[in-house]
Amino acid sequence: MSTQRPIDLRSDTVTRPSPAMRRAMAEAEVGDDVYGEDPTVDLLERRTAGLLGKEAALFVPSGTMANQIAVGLHAGPGDELICDARAHVYVWEAGGIARHWGVQARTINPHGGLIGLDHLRDKIQPDNEHYVRTRLVCLENTHNRAGGRVHPYDSVREVADWARSNGLAMHLDGARLMNAVVASGVPASEWASHFDTVSICFSKGLGAPVGSAIAGSAELMRKAHRLRKALGGGMRQGGIVAAGALFALEHHVDRLADDHANARLIADAIERAPGLSLESGPVETNLVWIAVDPGAGTAREVADRLREAGVLVSALGPQTLRAVTHLDVSRGQCERAAGAIVEVAEGMAARA
Amino acid sequence: MSTQRPIDLRSDTVTRPSPAMRRAMAEAEVGDDVYGEDPTVDLLERRTAGLLGKEAALFVPSGTMANQIAVGLHAGPGDELICDARAHVYVWEAGGIARHWGVQARTINPHGGLIGLDHLRDKIQPDNEHYVRTRLVCLENTHNRAGGRVHPYDSVREVADWARSNGLAMHLDGARLMNAVVASGVPASEWASHFDTVSICFSKGLGAPVGSAIAGSAELMRKAHRLRKALGGGMRQGGIVAAGALFALEHHVDRLADDHANARLIADAIERAPGLSLESGPVETNLVWIAVDPGAGTAREVADRLREAGVLVSALGPQTLRAVTHLDVSRGQCERAAGAIVEVAEGMAARA
Amino acid sequence: MSTQRPIDLRSDTVTRPSPAMRRAMAEAEVGDDVYGEDPTVDLLERRTAGLLGKEAALFVPSGTMANQIAVGLHAGPGDELICDARAHVYVWEAGGIARHWGVQARTINPHGGLIGLDHLRDKIQPDNEHYVRTRLVCLENTHNRAGGRVHPYDSVREVADWARSNGLAMHLDGARLMNAVVASGVPASEWASHFDTVSICFSKGLGAPVGSAIAGSAELMRKAHRLRKALGGGMRQGGIVAAGALFALEHHVDRLADDHANARLIADAIERAPGLSLESGPVETNLVWIAVDPGAGTAREVADRLREAGVLVSALGPQTLRAVTHLDVSRGQCERAAGAIVEVAEGMAARA
Amino acid sequence: MSTQRPIDLRSDTVTRPSPAMRRAMAEAEVGDDVYGEDPTVDLLERRTAGLLGKEAALFVPSGTMANQIAVGLHAGPGDELICDARAHVYVWEAGGIARHWGVQARTINPHGGLIGLDHLRDKIQPDNEHYVRTRLVCLENTHNRAGGRVHPYDSVREVADWARSNGLAMHLDGARLMNAVVASGVPASEWASHFDTVSICFSKGLGAPVGSAIAGSAELMRKAHRLRKALGGGMRQGGIVAAGALFALEHHVDRLADDHANARLIADAIERAPGLSLESGPVETNLVWIAVDPGAGTAREVADRLREAGVLVSALGPQTLRAVTHLDVSRGQCERAAGAIVEVAEGMAARA
Repeated sequence: MSTQRPIDLRSDTVTRPSPAMRRAMAEAEVGDDVYGEDPTVDLLERRTAGLLGKEAALFVPSGTMANQIAVGLHAGPGDELICDARAHVYVWEAGGIARHWGVQARTINPHGGLIGLDHLRDKIQPDNEHYVRTRLVCLENTHNRAGGRVHPYDSVREVADWARSNGLAMHLDGARLMNAVVASGVPASEWASHFDTVSICFSKGLGAPVGSAIAGSAELMRKAHRLRKALGGGMRQGGIVAAGALFALEHHVDRLADDHANARLIADAIERAPGLSLESGPVETNLVWIAVDPGAGTAREVADRLREAGVLVSALGPQTLRAVTHLDVSRGQCERAAGAIVEVAEGMAARA
Repeated sequence: MSTQRPIDLRSDTVTRPSPAMRRAMAEAEVGDDVYGEDPTVDLLERRTAGLLGKEAALFVPSGTMANQIAVGLHAGPGDELICDARAHVYVWEAGGIARHWGVQARTINPHGGLIGLDHLRDKIQPDNEHYVRTRLVCLENTHNRAGGRVHPYDSVREVADWARSNGLAMHLDGARLMNAVVASGVPASEWASHFDTVSICFSKGLGAPVGSAIAGSAELMRKAHRLRKALGGGMRQGGIVAAGALFALEHHVDRLADDHANARLIADAIERAPGLSLESGPVETNLVWIAVDPGAGTAREVADRLREAGVLVSALGPQTLRAVTHLDVSRGQCERAAGAIVEVAEGMAARA
Repeated sequence: MSTQRPIDLRSDTVTRPSPAMRRAMAEAEVGDDVYGEDPTVDLLERRTAGLLGKEAALFVPSGTMANQIAVGLHAGPGDELICDARAHVYVWEAGGIARHWGVQARTINPHGGLIGLDHLRDKIQPDNEHYVRTRLVCLENTHNRAGGRVHPYDSVREVADWARSNGLAMHLDGARLMNAVVASGVPASEWASHFDTVSICFSKGLGAPVGSAIAGSAELMRKAHRLRKALGGGMRQGGIVAAGALFALEHHVDRLADDHANARLIADAIERAPGLSLESGPVETNLVWIAVDPGAGTAREVADRLREAGVLVSALGPQTLRAVTHLDVSRGQCERAAGAIVEVAEGMAARA
Repeated sequence: MSTQRPIDLRSDTVTRPSPAMRRAMAEAEVGDDVYGEDPTVDLLERRTAGLLGKEAALFVPSGTMANQIAVGLHAGPGDELICDARAHVYVWEAGGIARHWGVQARTINPHGGLIGLDHLRDKIQPDNEHYVRTRLVCLENTHNRAGGRVHPYDSVREVADWARSNGLAMHLDGARLMNAVVASGVPASEWASHFDTVSICFSKGLGAPVGSAIAGSAELMRKAHRLRKALGGGMRQGGIVAAGALFALEHHVDRLADDHANARLIADAIERAPGLSLESGPVETNLVWIAVDPGAGTAREVADRLREAGVLVSALGPQTLRAVTHLDVSRGQCERAAGAIVEVAEGMAARA
């Protein structure tokens, strides 16, 4: 067992604020945001709206709250949204779609994980008392469970055009939108232009300690304000944490390219490691989803061996692992992790 | 255009009560069932419980209410049920799963429409705050949208054993359970033994004007009583309609075999008709789902031609028709309908 | 203990259909109302709409469903309705306001039980994210728990004018509206003109076995149709029961005056009976709410003694009884009941 | 108009973190709290649990979320809670009781604003399908809208004993519990011993920028964790804000006595000011609710004049003002505010 601090690849949510970010938070000008008087929250919301080309944005404690507010803005009891069966909003938000809003989810199982127009054409329910009212399409970009892949831009545009012409709203779960921006070269505002609302997380790849935002029209954001209050997401002197998010927006976007390069390095190791493979094809951003061949062992076993070797990854299924690169793991650490992965896999293969 | 009353194959819900059934209703002894004083409702509930081998049953106005009560008995906000993506409870109940109970649906798309154990094994969500709690499996037997097919009995037993050993409840949407009983020879109570709750409709193949029931343990039915009240399903002197349901149970079960034979006759016509085919393979009960080849026209066009020929069927998708046999269509009418179907199809093929 | 069938004054819901009403039901022309093809349901809905001066009406299984649909039409999650703290919609509908629609109730405790404008002026919540949105005022007329009293017409008009000028919807729980009509001489349509929606019950004073209706604009009724489906209130060949309701509307309205006279006769007995008093002042319609002086005994004790004397009344609180006159109790029976009440009260007083 | 920074008495939520508190936050040790790895959050939760004598506590972004989680722990669809009609949980949480949990509120209007056992005895609904299930009593201590009064300790104990013997849960909205502790001398854990769950706010009188907590048994807190996730209240490196809350618990409790003394100083001014009076009798803690005599003007007018004089108070009703003392207003400022209040009132009286 390694005596060093482990290399933590479980998630990009584990980052700790840097001294400079801490300083920005400690010096933040604050006020009571419930009265609309926190200048730092205000600045963050204007910056976020600007980044996403929307009229307004709202700061919230978590990505789950941002997505849930979006669902509540666009749909209500008796309505339906369409999303991928592995979308965060459906899988990892504790059933909020149904429990908070009374909304039914119609899930798609696209090969490769990315919804395109072909999956959607026949999914709008008839206008008839027997059926739900189809109201909303949610996309996730990058799509975590689809290997962190970037949605093809033209496909997003095509889906959005179809949705609009059918009276459906579009929400983008952009928890890792900046990874998609850096990987694709398509600006955030251009991605966002195809959606009525966009959520974005400051606490994942961007490395802020707390917070997410939702952006959209001024009218939608007024309603979002109400929903945030109802969910208990109002934070008084929120500027303290908003300052961390602002710092992240200013200093931690371009460097996501390093995370992507580091992830490819891990991915290369997976391809060399016996019994392991990339679950969703080539790695495009900072997420590496790994399939463990049952012949080689279980995901839990591989994760335990890696832990002993000083590398933390997540076991997210019986045969599924995830490794994530981020701000707090260096190139050198990723190289060591890559080596450990190959070594552990070879060791398990030898014993199998 | 035919001057005769049309042969109505749209649904087995269109039947009208016979003179004998009307007489039974007119003579029913009644009381205020909200006080538990309606002897006819009481008798119907005891008969239904007996038929299904359950401790108790509850009379409700509709199959939708029966299914929705079942969902509410077994699951609540933050919970999840698993069902086929084409199940009545998910598709045709106006989103009640989410809107009434805050329950999320995890849908399966089994080839052929019938869920088996292989579809379920990896569907229980981890016990973790991020996830819904998996609570309930719903099966539908016969399965309307799967061509009225009967679930293979051994598969149902296997699913039920797995569900029980994983702490999941089982609900059977038995709107057309008696069709499955007649087609399979397996008694209703034997089917029901694998489920915690079973719903059954008196107003479909059984031909009563109004009403369904849900059956289960005495304790569950006490809770169901509360949910029926909340949904507004309490009927005062409900014995009037319960008498029709009792009559149906006594006189209209065995004759379902005729409906099945008539449906096969229609199915044979479909197989001879150019441009039409059976959507779900061989017809097992009283439902005939028909795929219309786009080259031949749309479902709407075929339905319109058939209407002109005096035969009513339902267009339930751009290229999907459904014909249903029941109490109010005779062998002779079905023969005429079969002839009309072939004729219309040939006419359309000739013009195509 | 009396050997005669008891005189049942528990509720006006206990009436049994007369032979003539049964005949009307047995002969009703029916169709599948879910397809909009039941001519008897259709006729009942048109008649009800006409009676209430509304564009359309919808037949439902119960008064609870009618009221709940009204709540769902006018309010949703985060909204609030205002009603009396003893209104049926708040007290006796199993919490449906909150459970079905996520609506909060702001309750008033008016002296005498009838809400007037003075109770309402300060009840509209500020337009601010902290508060619910005030949306709806519900009145009940006659008001069951307020002694079956009729709302003063001018007060209703005043409340309605205020509500409209403040953008609030008005719903009338008219389960016993025809009692108010007969007692006040104000036509149903005139009462209804002050409300966006009105519910009415056929199974209370009007004596039909099953059913209620909700009436309003054509647009609201289209939405109501959807909500009825969601609640499971669609009835296939509903014409059977609708025929009973039609019969009731035709033959059982004017005779409510007899029930009112009979109730006054009971009320007179209460005033003579030691230890009993009228809980809500003079009796105006068919409901007699009775306060039992604790010195004389409990409501349960009085009800038990009356039962032994062949008279059934409801004990609805530790010291509260209710006696209700209706179609199935004659003048003579009410005279006997009045006698029994005085006798029982005197007997208990003698022993006290 | 004053050129100084105004004396802000609108709420005790407007405080800004002091340099020492900011330093504590900047230096906080953090981790990913969603993985349970944030040592500062962990310490805050253990401290809070200890303070309240409970097994466990959970850190959340707001007092609204703390209260709403409590409602969700104790009640669900078809259930009812009892609270004062002016309780925060009912009035200022955007209807969350109904919208999140489907729970109905039964509100009490006690004279003086404090619920005692006499208000509760007849409020438990009968066990019958018509009624909600009574599940929970919520008290608020200090009670904001009741003039910041402290509940008499014996009355709380009496209510709690009654609730327990009737199977009802008890929740304490302790947003300002520490004010009650300081004012009464009764320790927090003794107050809390009468409740199943207690919420407490760090961002009101205690002066932390963000955050509240809920405390209770370990089992309830495990469920609370799930509800927090569902509401979107999970914060990743929450230790940054938790450090502010810890600092507040350590340094800002005893000094609440100063706020109370300052509030009495303001209250004395109200008693001398023509046209103003204390709405709820003698001031016990840091909240001063003020009734404006309509003859003197409106609350809005008084607030505007005070603003011109450099004093901010809240107009919370047409004739209602609130002034709140806190960490960021000194004795001297309160003396100046008291003077301004008398002066403004006299000026308005002179013109009236």
